[in-house]
Amino acid sequence: MDDKETGRVEAFSDGVFAVAITLLVLNIHGLDNPLSHPADSDLATILLRQWPTYLAFATSFATIGVMWINHHRLFTHIKRVDTNLLALNLLLLFVIVFIPFPTALLTSYITHPENHIAAVLYSATCILLAISFNVLWRYASHKNRLLDKDADREAVQAITNQYRFGPLFYVISLILAFIYVPASVVLNLLLALFFALPGRHARSAPED
Amino acid sequence: MDDKETGRVEAFSDGVFAVAITLLVLNIHGLDNPLSHPADSDLATILLRQWPTYLAFATSFATIGVMWINHHRLFTHIKRVDTNLLALNLLLLFVIVFIPFPTALLTSYITHPENHIAAVLYSATCILLAISFNVLWRYASHKNRLLDKDADREAVQAITNQYRFGPLFYVISLILAFIYVPASVVLNLLLALFFALPGRHARSAPED
Amino acid sequence: MDDKETGRVEAFSDGVFAVAITLLVLNIHGLDNPLSHPADSDLATILLRQWPTYLAFATSFATIGVMWINHHRLFTHIKRVDTNLLALNLLLLFVIVFIPFPTALLTSYITHPENHIAAVLYSATCILLAISFNVLWRYASHKNRLLDKDADREAVQAITNQYRFGPLFYVISLILAFIYVPASVVLNLLLALFFALPGRHARSAPED
Amino acid sequence: MDDKETGRVEAFSDGVFAVAITLLVLNIHGLDNPLSHPADSDLATILLRQWPTYLAFATSFATIGVMWINHHRLFTHIKRVDTNLLALNLLLLFVIVFIPFPTALLTSYITHPENHIAAVLYSATCILLAISFNVLWRYASHKNRLLDKDADREAVQAITNQYRFGPLFYVISLILAFIYVPASVVLNLLLALFFALPGRHARSAPED
Repeated sequence: MDDKETGRVEAFSDGVFAVAITLLVLNIHGLDNPLSHPADSDLATILLRQWPTYLAFATSFATIGVMWINHHRLFTHIKRVDTNLLALNLLLLFVIVFIPFPTALLTSYITHPENHIAAVLYSATCILLAISFNVLWRYASHKNRLLDKDADREAVQAITNQYRFGPLFYVISLILAFIYVPASVVLNLLLALFFALPGRHARSAPED
Repeated sequence: MDDKETGRVEAFSDGVFAVAITLLVLNIHGLDNPLSHPADSDLATILLRQWPTYLAFATSFATIGVMWINHHRLFTHIKRVDTNLLALNLLLLFVIVFIPFPTALLTSYITHPENHIAAVLYSATCILLAISFNVLWRYASHKNRLLDKDADREAVQAITNQYRFGPLFYVISLILAFIYVPASVVLNLLLALFFALPGRHARSAPED
Repeated sequence: MDDKETGRVEAFSDGVFAVAITLLVLNIHGLDNPLSHPADSDLATILLRQWPTYLAFATSFATIGVMWINHHRLFTHIKRVDTNLLALNLLLLFVIVFIPFPTALLTSYITHPENHIAAVLYSATCILLAISFNVLWRYASHKNRLLDKDADREAVQAITNQYRFGPLFYVISLILAFIYVPASVVLNLLLALFFALPGRHARSAPED
Repeated sequence: MDDKETGRVEAFSDGVFAVAITLLVLNIHGLDNPLSHPADSDLATILLRQWPTYLAFATSFATIGVMWINHHRLFTHIKRVDTNLLALNLLLLFVIVFIPFPTALLTSYITHPENHIAAVLYSATCILLAISFNVLWRYASHKNRLLDKDADREAVQAITNQYRFGPLFYVISLILAFIYVPASVVLNLLLALFFALPGRHARSAPED
C-alpha cells in the first residue's frame, strides 16, 4: 500500500520533469518558424549567431536533469506519503516548471547591458529550488517520519549535509550576478554538477 | 488484475495533469519571444509590469496541483475500473485540460473593465470541475461499487461530505464574479486550499 | 518479466496519449495571445464567435480519449510483447499524434466553402486509425499469439467483431464529407461513442 | 528494490520520449495558425505544397520511435542503476530532445540550395545519438556491471555488435549530406529501420 502511494507521487513528478525538460527545445530560436529567417544571411551564420540559445538549452537541461536525479535519490529513501509531503512536492515542482522562464530571459539578454537582472532572477530561482529540496527532505527525514524503517542512516545524513549549504551557495551566485554575470553562470553550472554527485557516504557505498 | 487496471488509469491521468500543469509556464508573457520587448523600457520594469501573469501562473498551478492531490486521494480508495468510470475520469480530465484557457483570459483582462466575464468563466469552469469530482466519486463509492472491500468507511464518508458542497461554494464565487472580481479570485484560492486538506475523519487518521 | 514488458509499452503510450490530448487546448484561439483581441468588440462576443474552436476541442478530446479507452482495453488482454507489436503500436500512436492537425483544419474551415477537403482529411485519418487498431489487435490475438493464456475467448472475439467494420464505417463518413460536412462530423462523433462501449459479450460480463 | 530503481528511470525516459515525439506535430506548418492561409490559393493546394513538412514529421517520428524501442530493449537487460548510468541516460535524452530542431531545419531548407548544412546537422545529431547509445550500453554491460545476473549472453553480445558500427554508418550519412542530400536522408531512414530490428541472435530467439 505504501509503495503504491510513493509510486504515484513519483509518476506525477516524473511527468512534470519530463515535460519541463522537453519543452526547453521550444526555446531554440527559429525552431517554431524556420522559414522566417532573413534571406540575406546564410544558414550557417544564422545558426552560429544564436549560440547563447544552445548554451541556455544545455544549462537548463542539465539543471532540470540533475534535479530529477536528486528527486529520484530522495524517493529511494522516502517510503510513505502524507498531505504535507504532497504539498511540499508540489512546491518543488512549481519551481522546476518555472525554470524555463529565467533561462529564456538570461539567453536573450546575455549580450545586453541589462543582463544583471536576468542573472539575478536565475540565481533567485535556484535559491528557491535549493530551499524547496531542503524543506521537503527535512520534513520527510525528521525522526525518520516518512523514510524506510531500515533506511541507511549514513546515506540519509550525507544527503542532509550535502543540501545544507545549497541555498547559501546560490546566494553567492546571486551576489556574483550583480558583479560579473559569466562568473555567476559558471558557478550555477558547477553547483548543478555538485548536486549530481551522491553525498559523501553514499558515494563510497553502492547507491542501490 | 484489478490493480493493473487502476494503475493505468492513474498513469494516464498523471500524464494529463503533468502536461497541463507544465504547459502553464508557456502563458508567462515574453517567454516565447523574449527578444521582442520594446527597447525603451528596462527589463525590471517589464518584469514587474506583468505581475498578473505570475499571479495567474501561481493560481492555475495551485488549482491543478490540488486537483491532482484529490485525484490521488480518490484512487487510494478506488480499486476497480469499469467503462463508466473511465468515461467519468475522461470528463474530469477534460475540465482539467481546459483550465489554462479561462486562466489566460482572466490574466489578460484583470485590469480591464470587462474582467467580470473572464472571472465568471473561471468560476463556471471550477463548478464543472467540482461536479465532475462529485459524480466520479459518487459513482465509484455508491455501495462500495469500485472501492476496496476493506475501504475505511469513515474516510470514504469524509470525502463525500467534503465534496458535497463544492459546486455550491463555486456558485457563490461565480455570483461574486459579477459583483467584485478580486473577491471571487480570493475565494477560488481559499477553496483550492480547502480541497487540499483531507476530509475531517481522514485528517485525524494517518492517510495511508 | 512479461508483465514488465507490456508495462513499459503502456507507460509510453499513456504518455503519448496524455500529451496529445492536452496539447489540444493550445488550439483554442486566443489562448496563446489573449491581449491581441481587437479593442472594438467586447469579450463575450469574441468568446461566442469562436464556437467552432470549442467544438473541435471537444471532438478531438473525445476521439483521443475514447481511443485511449480502446488501447487500454486491448492491453488488458495482451500480455506479451515482440518487436512487431512495438512497431504496430508506434504506427497507432503516429495516427493519434497526427489527429490535432486535421482537427485544427476542420475548425478553421468549418464555415468556409472549402470545408469538404478538411472533413475528408479528418475522416481519412480516422480510417487509418481504425485500420491501425485492427492490425494491432489481429496480430496480437491471432492464435492467442501475445494474449494471456487464459484470455476470455468470448471477450477477445467480441473486440474482433466490434473492430471489423470500423474502417468501413469511416469510409461512409469520408463519402459523406464530400456530400454534406455536418453529417460526416456527427457520424464521427457517433462512431467515437460506439467504440467507447465494450464489445457485445464483454458488455454483459464485468470488464475486469 | 533494484526493480524500483530502473522502473523510475524508465518512467522518466518514457515521459521524455513521449513528449518529444508528440511535440513533432507542432512543426506541421499551419497547425498553429490555420486561419492565416492566403485567401487566393485553395486548401488542397496549400496542403499538397507543404509535403516536406509531412515527410519530416514522419521521419522524426520514426527516428524517435525506433530509439524508444532501442531504449526499451536495453532496459530489458539492465536491472540496476548507479549515478553514472543516470548521467549517461540524461545525455541520451538530451540528444533525443534536440532532434526536432535539425528536423525542422531540414524541412524548411529541403528545396533550398543551402540544404547541405541542415542535412549535415541532422546526421551529426544522429552520430551523437549513436555514440550515446553505445556509451550507455558499454557502461551497463561491461562485465555485467548493471545487467541481470542471468542475462542472456548472446542477446547482450548481439546488441553490442549491432551498435558497434552505428556511429560509423552515420558518418557515411554525414559525408553524403555534403554530396547529395536525398541520399543522406534515405540512408538515415534505412538506419532507423535497421536499429528497429533486434540484433542477430536476439532475432532468432523470442525477445521476451
